Amino acid sequence: MKKISNIKMLALFLAYSFFAMADLHASSEHNLQTRYISYSQIGNPADVLELKTQTARTLNSGEVRVKVLAAPINPSDLYQISGNYGVDPVLPARPGSEGVGRVTEVSPEVNNLSVDQLVLLASGSTWAEEIVAPAEGFLPLPNLGPISAEIIEQLSMSAVNPLTALLMLTSYGDIKKGQWIVQSAANSAVGGYVIQLAKQRGIKTVNIVRRDGLADDLISKGADIVLIDGPDLSAQIAKATDNATIMLALDPVGGDTFGRLADSLGYGGTIITYGGLSGKPASLNTGKVIFNDTHVRGFWLYKWYQTATMQEKQAAFGQVIPLIVNGSLKANIDSRFTVDQIKQAVTRAWEDGRNGKVLIVSTSLL
Amino acid sequence: MKKISNIKMLALFLAYSFFAMADLHASSEHNLQTRYISYSQIGNPADVLELKTQTARTLNSGEVRVKVLAAPINPSDLYQISGNYGVDPVLPARPGSEGVGRVTEVSPEVNNLSVDQLVLLASGSTWAEEIVAPAEGFLPLPNLGPISAEIIEQLSMSAVNPLTALLMLTSYGDIKKGQWIVQSAANSAVGGYVIQLAKQRGIKTVNIVRRDGLADDLISKGADIVLIDGPDLSAQIAKATDNATIMLALDPVGGDTFGRLADSLGYGGTIITYGGLSGKPASLNTGKVIFNDTHVRGFWLYKWYQTATMQEKQAAFGQVIPLIVNGSLKANIDSRFTVDQIKQAVTRAWEDGRNGKVLIVSTSLL
Repeated sequence: MKKISNIKMLALFLAYSFFAMADLHASSEHNLQTRYISYSQIGNPADVLELKTQTARTLNSGEVRVKVLAAPINPSDLYQISGNYGVDPVLPARPGSEGVGRVTEVSPEVNNLSVDQLVLLASGSTWAEEIVAPAEGFLPLPNLGPISAEIIEQLSMSAVNPLTALLMLTSYGDIKKGQWIVQSAANSAVGGYVIQLAKQRGIKTVNIVRRDGLADDLISKGADIVLIDGPDLSAQIAKATDNATIMLALDPVGGDTFGRLADSLGYGGTIITYGGLSGKPASLNTGKVIFNDTHVRGFWLYKWYQTATMQEKQAAFGQVIPLIVNGSLKANIDSRFTVDQIKQAVTRAWEDGRNGKVLIVSTSLL
Repeated sequence: MKKISNIKMLALFLAYSFFAMADLHASSEHNLQTRYISYSQIGNPADVLELKTQTARTLNSGEVRVKVLAAPINPSDLYQISGNYGVDPVLPARPGSEGVGRVTEVSPEVNNLSVDQLVLLASGSTWAEEIVAPAEGFLPLPNLGPISAEIIEQLSMSAVNPLTALLMLTSYGDIKKGQWIVQSAANSAVGGYVIQLAKQRGIKTVNIVRRDGLADDLISKGADIVLIDGPDLSAQIAKATDNATIMLALDPVGGDTFGRLADSLGYGGTIITYGGLSGKPASLNTGKVIFNDTHVRGFWLYKWYQTATMQEKQAAFGQVIPLIVNGSLKANIDSRFTVDQIKQAVTRAWEDGRNGKVLIVSTSLL
């Protein structure tokens, strides 16, 4: 594994600036035109998102200009735009919560970043061609030598899904090598990261999906078992694991799937909800909760960023970034769109039957 | 408050013997006939329970004979008989989990109990005219002087519902004086105990019921607010409490009621399920769980008896018994039946519209 000495510094910056909004107000001092996405009302992303153009402005003291290379469309972005998130945006808002870019200009006061350096975008507003923000909105990646477009794309997804997977896997009880966990929507990006991170720890995974044809991909990532959801799911899980005691279930689906996962837990086990893909309230067998001492919790990465200590953040990033760089932690990519194709991009990101992430990318990556 | 010095001893015995089965096998050495309830198959209580008669046997070394004065029908009894409980009975089984009785005979080796003494029944199998069991199956009550039939009946309900109420109120977060909790099925026995115990601690209660006409009784017990369940329940609760932050919800109903109570919790609040009166899975808004950090737990008294330390048991009994004896902690009684009327009794105990507990009582209490 490549040694990345700057990771701690990255995480330090990240802790201060993640989810802060970049200052992107245009000035008329430059004539270069740059495009970005904005929305001024809550609603269906494909309806409310707009492509806007502004004239690039000169940098203020301490600011940096970064060309966005790649930024993913995460479910949490779409939830927030459509008004189904725990924090409402201040309108008009610029969407996009993470990404990767290359520094194109630095103001003289900035000494930790230089032109051509690769950075993670911690400023928000990442669905744009470029971002101008104070230096602490960018997390310098170490010199990685020649780096492939593939790794650049993977790095653009560092801050949300891999951390969600890592924290859910490690924060609720001490799941040990050889033990089983179960997760639904296993073909999601988070699901894929869970499989890979579990495999690296020797934790076995039961992976629930809703359709055929996904098992090969998941098994290639390290999945131990892949099952299709259905009314007999708990029995399927028991059979497939030889009645193993399962102490952790991860569910972004809700509805009956949530209840089936909860039913498959051993005494004192925990089920974590981190999404509501089914659009239905979770169904929960209260007898099972009572007699089996089931714990139900929710996981929200946003809150973690707000409350985790610096050490916790450093530890989390320090675990995932090197794995992404060396290619052992990755997500499938379904499709790539440029910023002017935003409506097609978000439409695709909400379609069933995808098998990977939708990215907004610079034309230089295409 | 009357001082009860023997409480610690009671709790000590209780810890060892609660839920143990009394040895009630008949012998032919006595000719006195005694009646008890038994069931040899799982099913609807009114169908499977049978009245049986046996000839009383002589006491073995260390045994005591107790005349049962009163024993309640608890929902957990009916759940177990009908096969909906966390522990299956060994068939044929004798139902009844608690009660109060009077010692009628002691074997010479027993020195902590004497004839005519009032005891709590910790031996199980309490739906019977008399119980013969080792001395540790009975918890001697201190000499209470002349004691009314009313207090005897209340004491018969000491070990299950008041402890459930106390433990749910005190074991999940530190709910302080002046803070609010919310509970459904507030007109149940547990609900009534919760109201009284909360009131004594200065904790305010929002009490949810399913029909009109119950508010006066609950307010007389100390309820602060009584509301009728419905789709707008969370809004009703917010309005009635002036948007108070509620950190604890207690629900034995399940279904939509559970979800509404969960929705009414403040950030980081806990909802406890301890029953499934609606017969429906609990409905849970996963978005709320995620963004509001809702904790869902189950409470099962049986497990507490198995796992609590001696000190915890002593503390719990030490809190409720004196309150029952002095009349400040009590449950409504709906109706009384003798052991031969068991089918009517369990039928009544499962009817909607009751307003109190159904007791199996000795004719001497009628």
